[in-house]
Amino acid sequence: MKAQSSYHIVIVGGGFAGLYAAKSLRHAQAEVTLVDKRNFHLFQPLLYQVATGWLSPGDIASPLRAVFHRYKNISVLMAEVIDVIPDEHKLVLCDGELSYDTLIIAAGTVPSYYGNDVWVPVAPGLKTIEDAIEIRRRILLAFEAAERETDPDKRNALLTFVIVGGGATGVELAGTIAELARVAIKDDFRSINPTKARIILIESTDRILPPYPPELSARAAKDLTNLGVSIQTEALVVDIQEDMIVIRQREQVKEISAKTVIWAGGTKGTPIGQVLASRTGATLDRAGRVIVEPDLTIPKYPDIFIVGDLAHFAHQNGKPLPGAAQVAMQQGRYVANLIKKRLKGQKLPAFHYKDKGSLAIIGRNEAVANMGWLKLHGFPAWLIWIFVHITYLIEFDNKLLVLIQWTWNYITHKRGARLITGKDPFPIVETYNKSPEKRDSE
Amino acid sequence: MKAQSSYHIVIVGGGFAGLYAAKSLRHAQAEVTLVDKRNFHLFQPLLYQVATGWLSPGDIASPLRAVFHRYKNISVLMAEVIDVIPDEHKLVLCDGELSYDTLIIAAGTVPSYYGNDVWVPVAPGLKTIEDAIEIRRRILLAFEAAERETDPDKRNALLTFVIVGGGATGVELAGTIAELARVAIKDDFRSINPTKARIILIESTDRILPPYPPELSARAAKDLTNLGVSIQTEALVVDIQEDMIVIRQREQVKEISAKTVIWAGGTKGTPIGQVLASRTGATLDRAGRVIVEPDLTIPKYPDIFIVGDLAHFAHQNGKPLPGAAQVAMQQGRYVANLIKKRLKGQKLPAFHYKDKGSLAIIGRNEAVANMGWLKLHGFPAWLIWIFVHITYLIEFDNKLLVLIQWTWNYITHKRGARLITGKDPFPIVETYNKSPEKRDSE
Repeated sequence: MKAQSSYHIVIVGGGFAGLYAAKSLRHAQAEVTLVDKRNFHLFQPLLYQVATGWLSPGDIASPLRAVFHRYKNISVLMAEVIDVIPDEHKLVLCDGELSYDTLIIAAGTVPSYYGNDVWVPVAPGLKTIEDAIEIRRRILLAFEAAERETDPDKRNALLTFVIVGGGATGVELAGTIAELARVAIKDDFRSINPTKARIILIESTDRILPPYPPELSARAAKDLTNLGVSIQTEALVVDIQEDMIVIRQREQVKEISAKTVIWAGGTKGTPIGQVLASRTGATLDRAGRVIVEPDLTIPKYPDIFIVGDLAHFAHQNGKPLPGAAQVAMQQGRYVANLIKKRLKGQKLPAFHYKDKGSLAIIGRNEAVANMGWLKLHGFPAWLIWIFVHITYLIEFDNKLLVLIQWTWNYITHKRGARLITGKDPFPIVETYNKSPEKRDSE
Repeated sequence: MKAQSSYHIVIVGGGFAGLYAAKSLRHAQAEVTLVDKRNFHLFQPLLYQVATGWLSPGDIASPLRAVFHRYKNISVLMAEVIDVIPDEHKLVLCDGELSYDTLIIAAGTVPSYYGNDVWVPVAPGLKTIEDAIEIRRRILLAFEAAERETDPDKRNALLTFVIVGGGATGVELAGTIAELARVAIKDDFRSINPTKARIILIESTDRILPPYPPELSARAAKDLTNLGVSIQTEALVVDIQEDMIVIRQREQVKEISAKTVIWAGGTKGTPIGQVLASRTGATLDRAGRVIVEPDLTIPKYPDIFIVGDLAHFAHQNGKPLPGAAQVAMQQGRYVANLIKKRLKGQKLPAFHYKDKGSLAIIGRNEAVANMGWLKLHGFPAWLIWIFVHITYLIEFDNKLLVLIQWTWNYITHKRGARLITGKDPFPIVETYNKSPEKRDSE
């Protein structure tokens, strides 16, 4: 690594928290190194649009080096962090070491299967570009295989899409898959009718979008149902196999034949949280998030900050803040400001989250917005959703193109990026077509 | 497969030849099935722009079902063709069979390493979206690894990019990699200066773009040299290893340390050509292309047509037609018209290629155009290139967005899709950083 003569701030993770921390440090009297194992910032809230063929990966990803190339005190390092040695102020990378004076960890979360990691291959989660491309591949291949399947039961399983988890990601996935089947590809096939596809949303509590007020949850459920999504509340996943998911709903066990299951059931802190806990004695919550002090440091280590989804911050009203882009951005900015104050020998009061509201999109012209006293749904909420997302995208990387792509898709009902890429599709088509037969004969 | 009561035309391959054949058959009194192992048509001439981070895969790919969804006599079948049984008028698919009355094979070519298939992993060719993403990954990772490399020799090898083959693809790759290094990412790094990257273009004959008139080859060479590309003519590849390429140039053997080698050295017919030859007695040329009759059929089988890059058609002036989009489109259209005539009991004269000229782009504002009596270079040729490509893209799939993306990139010097995706990058970074050391100590 290069020699650091001046004060050195290391940020781990280029998500919203890390990006905003780094941006806010661009005029600090310090060297800043942003470490990420990917070379781009990912606009995670729109990842579901890649997974459903609406946008291309490049539309929602900004190369980190391009974001920071003008700020000469900020370096980007593409590397994976393996260990933290707090007493030596040092990070261990996959192929080197990196010293820091102050460390900001913004490493985020990964999908959590609550101990059922055997479900990972049959029910992929949605956290990375590769996840999105894999989910897109499975959805599109299911329609392709259904077009060729003559057995009606197998065909129904191919045309059944189950999304586990009724939070914002699950709702958005269910809504866009419904739109894909009912609008974008409705005339594309000759043997099947894509509009007959079943989209099932599984939620463990008694309503979807649990963090929202009940009236907005009800509205979202109504809109999703109109789009043709079947919502199953109070339903727990018992098992997932290659062509079936088993749920327990109000003491009743149900089997659903489905070839495509997507996991939006929850997240947990990345493994670096555990490493940190074992090295510093910091406490993790049940989801593997690091419990932080009011100033986002960890106990006894005032030079280590945790920000974003990996932080469990419960000093505001006793409940931990949600894993949301808004929280991450505000925490990133706060820590940057605190460090700048410290460098001048000054202090900053505890972090305080300013809730600007939350938004979830359901489909074309449909969204819900919870902004304190103002609760909106339908077209006005949808307009706010578009406006907020475009504003952020442009702030990051001048991604005006996404607006143009959206407008184009909106007018034409097209999906620009409906590609099956990645692995050679044929082993999968064979699995799709042959494994049920095989099982039948067993 | 579904029952075919009427006349059934099967087209294998959704490239330019297959796509144009199918489109021209949209009003024919016949059922048409287009079989492709991918679910999209790929606009191959722009693939190098995906490989260099200029465009996203979705920008140059059109879902085949979307292209044909309005034409009810045309079905799309996503499947791989394994065998042809001409005497039974039957195709064997990876998972089924398909009967035809008339068969059009437009299965194209794959990269040819002239027997040195051991070079495939160290010098990938550029034929698929996955190839392009892999090449993009290698180019971008080489800069990332160079930024962290302290050994000057290893750093130089990481910053050396060798393109084998001075045809249009090689020239376009060399030009855009040079622009990437010298413009798009020039300020993105802190330890290395990307503008010092070496881009070397290897050509076996005495000039690049051999099919063009010598004066245009010379002009292209001058433009590439100005962009910083080193052109090595009369150079044959002797060996390629993970961090070195050995060439023999005018009896002199040279070793070039280079971590990134891209193969644009030639193509050969896809394996279906061999299958067909063994089943029908058709003759293949040395590049594995099927030698066709003046009407693009094969001898003794008037119901089997070969069109596009897989066809060796030498009835016009003794020389086989080049593997170009123009040839493929005209052959696809010709065969469709011939079949429509046949269905009415009429005939069509032999295929005749109408050469509309050829174009190769070198860089921003630089191209060469050879249009018979009109030979252009520089900005006018570049404008024609843009116009021709946009016209085709819009004809296919209304890809106005590509024009907007180009305009945006042109104004901002940005690259929209500079993402390292696909495999987990870290094994590669380790290979990049560690394998030279390992060898040193061996």
